[in-house]
Amino acid sequence: MTAIQHYIADNREKILEELSALLSIPSVSSDPRKKTHMKHAADFLRIKLLEYGADKAALLPTRGFPVVYAEKIIHSDLPTVLVYGHYDVMPAEPVELWASDPFKPVIRENRIYARGADDNKGQLFTHLKAFEYLTRNNLHRCNIKFIIEGEEEIGSPSLSGFLRKNKDLLKSDIIVVSDTKMAGPDLPSVTIGLRGLCYAEIEVKGPDRDLHSGHYGGVIANPVHALCSVIASFFDQQQRIIIPGFYDQVQALSETEKNELSRITVSVDDFKASTGVHDLTGEDGFTIPERVGARPALDVNAIWAGHIGEGSKTIIPSTAHAKITIRLVPDQSPDNIHDILKKHISALKIKGVTVELKNFYGSKGYSSSVESKAYLSAISALKKAFGVDPVPTRSGGSIPIISDFEQILGLKTILMGFGLDSDRIHSPNENFSLNNLFRGIESVVYFYDEYCREGRVAR
Amino acid sequence: MTAIQHYIADNREKILEELSALLSIPSVSSDPRKKTHMKHAADFLRIKLLEYGADKAALLPTRGFPVVYAEKIIHSDLPTVLVYGHYDVMPAEPVELWASDPFKPVIRENRIYARGADDNKGQLFTHLKAFEYLTRNNLHRCNIKFIIEGEEEIGSPSLSGFLRKNKDLLKSDIIVVSDTKMAGPDLPSVTIGLRGLCYAEIEVKGPDRDLHSGHYGGVIANPVHALCSVIASFFDQQQRIIIPGFYDQVQALSETEKNELSRITVSVDDFKASTGVHDLTGEDGFTIPERVGARPALDVNAIWAGHIGEGSKTIIPSTAHAKITIRLVPDQSPDNIHDILKKHISALKIKGVTVELKNFYGSKGYSSSVESKAYLSAISALKKAFGVDPVPTRSGGSIPIISDFEQILGLKTILMGFGLDSDRIHSPNENFSLNNLFRGIESVVYFYDEYCREGRVAR
Repeated sequence: MTAIQHYIADNREKILEELSALLSIPSVSSDPRKKTHMKHAADFLRIKLLEYGADKAALLPTRGFPVVYAEKIIHSDLPTVLVYGHYDVMPAEPVELWASDPFKPVIRENRIYARGADDNKGQLFTHLKAFEYLTRNNLHRCNIKFIIEGEEEIGSPSLSGFLRKNKDLLKSDIIVVSDTKMAGPDLPSVTIGLRGLCYAEIEVKGPDRDLHSGHYGGVIANPVHALCSVIASFFDQQQRIIIPGFYDQVQALSETEKNELSRITVSVDDFKASTGVHDLTGEDGFTIPERVGARPALDVNAIWAGHIGEGSKTIIPSTAHAKITIRLVPDQSPDNIHDILKKHISALKIKGVTVELKNFYGSKGYSSSVESKAYLSAISALKKAFGVDPVPTRSGGSIPIISDFEQILGLKTILMGFGLDSDRIHSPNENFSLNNLFRGIESVVYFYDEYCREGRVAR
Repeated sequence: MTAIQHYIADNREKILEELSALLSIPSVSSDPRKKTHMKHAADFLRIKLLEYGADKAALLPTRGFPVVYAEKIIHSDLPTVLVYGHYDVMPAEPVELWASDPFKPVIRENRIYARGADDNKGQLFTHLKAFEYLTRNNLHRCNIKFIIEGEEEIGSPSLSGFLRKNKDLLKSDIIVVSDTKMAGPDLPSVTIGLRGLCYAEIEVKGPDRDLHSGHYGGVIANPVHALCSVIASFFDQQQRIIIPGFYDQVQALSETEKNELSRITVSVDDFKASTGVHDLTGEDGFTIPERVGARPALDVNAIWAGHIGEGSKTIIPSTAHAKITIRLVPDQSPDNIHDILKKHISALKIKGVTVELKNFYGSKGYSSSVESKAYLSAISALKKAFGVDPVPTRSGGSIPIISDFEQILGLKTILMGFGLDSDRIHSPNENFSLNNLFRGIESVVYFYDEYCREGRVAR
């Protein structure tokens, strides 16, 4: 056993207790009623970072929720690693589908269940405990900075402003983030590509009030029909997106990229079984990892109109709404997507209602090199912790600020995630494997070992 | 002034107080939390009917909410009029759009505002007060029976069973109902056609839980997209219904019918202004009264999926739902509509999800003669009360049990309604014109005058 393995074995209960305490805080950034809990989660982390050895830790203001900032500076000549994570979580609804309270963590079958167990409190915790280990054993060979934000699940609206304002404070050599998945349960990976994200709401307005569908049906355009025809117009039968121009900026995968992605073997049957669907959909001619990692997608996340509760209410609803997200591959620009989406909707010329695209925001995708010192250090660390050769992957998810890091701070990011498909992030019964939690802590320690081995760096 | 006009003038405050008391009871049949209020409304009417002169009045059980039954039998040889109404109302939601509490009636500008002010408590009240007037002045020349049900707004699921069970008790010569609109603010009418109603829910099931739209977008079929494509497949750009076979049973209007309907002049500009829309839609080649009264329509009344509350939740929702109603013209059969709808949906062969048609129920449309004694009595009564020649109309709405009355009891119905377009039934700020309330009471009294004039009838 290595020293860190011993440390984990000796501190197992304490690690789980501390993580549970963090998971118990319902820090749902999208819910205005949870503001106190957001503050509570941020404070909890600030205090823990001090306890684990930070020279200083503070809540830095943004125009939204504050960023937890902490640092341990050993020497200005040493390389600096900036760790990013987030303390906010998705809403837990529908709560009735959880086997246990989403904010009362429980351990079942070597997994910890709670909202945020993986995304991102559990994954972030690997960094906190690795940091503590280095402190306790006086093993720091790098400077370490932490920024932990509270708005990742709502698209990080304040973070780019924060980065611009704190460029000097955040000066570093590399950013490390654990907020992604591994390629498989025992197959660690470094994510070298992320999809960008555009969010928008479609609002359809019809009559100035709900109308009796008997007295007006057949004469007044129904906003729900209009909304459905807008949404239906986005796709062909294969769910390929047919908005004119949508794929124009999408670059074809090179043979090398195709080969890399083909190392991730996804069993279609397992994929179906783990999601409960009978048939997969998507673009012909692309494998599952390609569809998810290297092709864009558009999904309606929510839709609503009319009387949703029990019982019928025979009306033409006055308005209809949908929330949509578009996942972009690295070469697609959110501005372009906004334009073609607007143009497409207006070209539909839907009569009798107004269709508006609202609250649009977007961030670009990201891709990184497989030859950098940081990448190679991560690969080597993961191999040591998991005993397997890691693979580079492209995630279908989006971490909107990774491209901001590059553009504003000029820094590349190592995405070294410990999540699994079975972690059910964003869904009821989110959980995190304790094995991955512990091997995650190990991996982070080994990463510093590798990356900081040479001491001083020539900048 | 006629005697009834005097009576109304003398009792104005009392009439409004009593109606307000009834309107204060939130008897929403579709809301399980309102059960006590349903009982309260039924009891209120039972007691009022006794007070107004019924020989007996009782709550008769059904498999759902009870029917208020009352009768005044003068002599078995006299004609019997059966008055039908309903004591249940639509939900008041969205309550925030009401200018005053939907269950605290207020009078503004000679209108009474409350949920049910028109539909049906206000309209029903014209019959109760006419009945009271006849009793107080010893003017009954007919037998009168009342049935007032509590499930009209949820499609009267128990009433046909009730009618079958109580055929003898309900033996009558004609049914009179005030639950329809006039042709215009000063143009009274008898409704000689009603559209039938089919109700159904469409449920689309996809993955067994909400999935992260980044990790699964582009591979897993999104139930919202599927639902939207089902709904979009119902219509062409003009909102003409393109479900194969949908118009097969729809009979073309005869020239006579077209002429009758053309007496109702609807200004397109007024229609737009009163609903706040810029363009009307619907089938080419038909006028507004024809589209609403003599052509079928399909409307989505509600749709929902995903996280509807504040904030974004980037998921592929596990399920998506819609509630739809189809308005039928007299020759269309609900069973046929059910079959073609099911067939159409299954022919779409939507991949990766299951689409189910649930909770279907339907009732046929209705049409009646313009030559019967009852019809002529109604026309004459309305002319006397309003001072204008009434017109026969076809309503786009549905009163599902009117065709049941014909099929089960063998009785025709006179639909003599006092509602106006501006009454906003089923919408926030429902109201009823006090003029129409009072002229309604008059009309009912004059109707009995005409219809019962000859005394004994040969059966």
